[in-house]
Amino acid sequence: MSPAAPIITLLTDFGDEDGFVGAMRGVMLSRAPRARLVDLAHHVPRGDVAKAARVLARSAPHFPPGTIHCVVVDPGVGSSRHAVAVAAAGHRFIAPDNGVLTDVLTALGAPVSALPPTAARLITHPDARRAVVSHTFHGRDLFAPAAAALAAGLALDAIGPVAPAPLVRLDRRPPRTRLDGSRIGHIVEVDRFGNLITDLDPPDGRFRLSVARSDDREALALMGPAPSYSAVSPGEFVVVCSSQGTLEIAVRDGSAAERLDLAAGDRVTIAPFGRPTDVPDQGEPR
Amino acid sequence: MSPAAPIITLLTDFGDEDGFVGAMRGVMLSRAPRARLVDLAHHVPRGDVAKAARVLARSAPHFPPGTIHCVVVDPGVGSSRHAVAVAAAGHRFIAPDNGVLTDVLTALGAPVSALPPTAARLITHPDARRAVVSHTFHGRDLFAPAAAALAAGLALDAIGPVAPAPLVRLDRRPPRTRLDGSRIGHIVEVDRFGNLITDLDPPDGRFRLSVARSDDREALALMGPAPSYSAVSPGEFVVVCSSQGTLEIAVRDGSAAERLDLAAGDRVTIAPFGRPTDVPDQGEPR
Amino acid sequence: MSPAAPIITLLTDFGDEDGFVGAMRGVMLSRAPRARLVDLAHHVPRGDVAKAARVLARSAPHFPPGTIHCVVVDPGVGSSRHAVAVAAAGHRFIAPDNGVLTDVLTALGAPVSALPPTAARLITHPDARRAVVSHTFHGRDLFAPAAAALAAGLALDAIGPVAPAPLVRLDRRPPRTRLDGSRIGHIVEVDRFGNLITDLDPPDGRFRLSVARSDDREALALMGPAPSYSAVSPGEFVVVCSSQGTLEIAVRDGSAAERLDLAAGDRVTIAPFGRPTDVPDQGEPR
Repeated sequence: MSPAAPIITLLTDFGDEDGFVGAMRGVMLSRAPRARLVDLAHHVPRGDVAKAARVLARSAPHFPPGTIHCVVVDPGVGSSRHAVAVAAAGHRFIAPDNGVLTDVLTALGAPVSALPPTAARLITHPDARRAVVSHTFHGRDLFAPAAAALAAGLALDAIGPVAPAPLVRLDRRPPRTRLDGSRIGHIVEVDRFGNLITDLDPPDGRFRLSVARSDDREALALMGPAPSYSAVSPGEFVVVCSSQGTLEIAVRDGSAAERLDLAAGDRVTIAPFGRPTDVPDQGEPR
Repeated sequence: MSPAAPIITLLTDFGDEDGFVGAMRGVMLSRAPRARLVDLAHHVPRGDVAKAARVLARSAPHFPPGTIHCVVVDPGVGSSRHAVAVAAAGHRFIAPDNGVLTDVLTALGAPVSALPPTAARLITHPDARRAVVSHTFHGRDLFAPAAAALAAGLALDAIGPVAPAPLVRLDRRPPRTRLDGSRIGHIVEVDRFGNLITDLDPPDGRFRLSVARSDDREALALMGPAPSYSAVSPGEFVVVCSSQGTLEIAVRDGSAAERLDLAAGDRVTIAPFGRPTDVPDQGEPR
Repeated sequence: MSPAAPIITLLTDFGDEDGFVGAMRGVMLSRAPRARLVDLAHHVPRGDVAKAARVLARSAPHFPPGTIHCVVVDPGVGSSRHAVAVAAAGHRFIAPDNGVLTDVLTALGAPVSALPPTAARLITHPDARRAVVSHTFHGRDLFAPAAAALAAGLALDAIGPVAPAPLVRLDRRPPRTRLDGSRIGHIVEVDRFGNLITDLDPPDGRFRLSVARSDDREALALMGPAPSYSAVSPGEFVVVCSSQGTLEIAVRDGSAAERLDLAAGDRVTIAPFGRPTDVPDQGEPR
């Protein structure tokens, strides 16, 4: 194989039991015989665009420039949402315009807000669609052919007209800093291990992290950061730097998500350790 | 890579935790170093030949001619069932003779009933089997080597003698039309999303679809077809054309299978909308 | 593709929902563009090193010499456990030094106790690590780059200094023979089908196998071996030779693990059939 054989990655919520991804692979290899197909993930929770956006940002940027990423987490299939081809930082993406590219474009230094208008295209070229496009399986009929068309040499500019700007963007509220110096962020993802990944960058020095749910049934206060999961005993909570560089709440050899009943969107607060606001006034840690 | 590097697809119920598929991949690459291995699905429910047949028909025909499909959903491993190599429409299949090829051969225009006798072979050539074949893992010892042998250039005619005809065929009762013009079909598959795929082609014009279980605990009557899942609100039932072209019962952003407690084999009726037989006489929709 | 394009296999407990394996694949293809990535398994139960060791031994030896196996089942990530590169029988392994190589090295005829000291290396070469190595994702930052470095031509001797000997070895108690000729072994693995794989080689002739749990709640006595699962009716227990050649307890079309509530580590006894020790003295079979 020439090193230049084009790579197509696949990210879907299709699982591995129905052959949906198999059908996409067949369409791709029929249209781009030299393409190398590589999986990012296929068990994204059904229709969970926000999770898919995180998964894409975690994995796609590690591929070499020239890679084509085909993303089909698409609860709006058959609706009026657009199908787009987007170029950024040497990578190309084929995806529904539902926000799923939000985080990867930010990670590549080309956030939606700064994307040149011509970098996003609708997919209209006949070589980039099957002759008949169903209303229920765009993965096979539209996204796979479009990715294959790029892999076979079709230029992004030729795949279709400029897409209506801006692309759909997921709401990614940044953490905010309070007057007392504490910072309020959120759990942004739960992984297979039940680790709770936040959007909070680790501060300088020691800090105290706390989470609370609106019904006050659960709470946790931890000192951090620990160097790794192994810093605590099995079954204990720990705050570490996640593989994305933000803070992560984990249970060694266990599931923090199960223990705390927390989910993406829940609030997390950190405060520098030793300041007055760190004094637990409600009996924490509970 | 030359475009002519042979493709071998894999379809099994082996899952992804034990390394069974990994062992098959190793056997294949040791015997056919140039082969390209592509997955159709590996989480077919254990021993579910009828489901595997649908998955194969959904995915295999999209691959280019020349592709070799290796299918190991084989509850009869070690019994007297045959292992066969079958050629149809430019594709070749390695599979147990348990009916798993029924639907894909129909899809390729070469149904079992019309298959030329010489197109199906037993697998006896020594290059197409491991030296010792276990009674519990034919995927590794028989099906993988046979697929690799074809990929490495062994001709189908040379892989073994003509198989006893006809191949095992799954019972696929076609829908039937009643005197009143209504049609009775079946749910033929449930997918990961809980969508219920039927064997009923969409009729011209509007229709009313109804399902009923023998114990009368659940029922549903829907007008259709809708253009896509998005035609209804989240949580509502909808009848759409499936990606196979037949009618499909779905719940937008939900699982119709869970809501209705229906499974493959259950009966579905459609009737043109507005005819006397459509008048619900039992209080439907319930 | 030249047949010599290097193969890298991947074995992890990362699942298929978060993109962790996707990130590893991207790192590998950026650093070794010609590498062929092949999956062994990714749904090994979280942190289950003993299971991963069995999976690796089942699958890796089937690959051609020259294959690089990248193993990331690593509950000690970020701790003081070493990361090693190991050569054995023409294969190379990149893995944490946590015992996960125990069974595959035995299978390859190079058990840990007989491994030449220079065959195991620490991973220190800068080309074999990312510039910054996190404490939570060595799969991406250390193991993937190391495997890619070997695939790109780095010699094992150059990847780092000789690792402290011996490598960590899992406790694999061999079966023992009692004075009465019976043999006591263990369940060593449960597979996706609920089959219970033991470490007992099949004896010559007929035998009686029995299992008992310490709380005496469950027991089973079976005659064996049967030629295959199909030797019994659906739902019945059967003892067969597993695909590894050892004895395996199964339920045809069912799960022996669920029926018996047994797990890896539980004891299994076999005795030649017809000898005095075979006389059930406690009412077996229960």
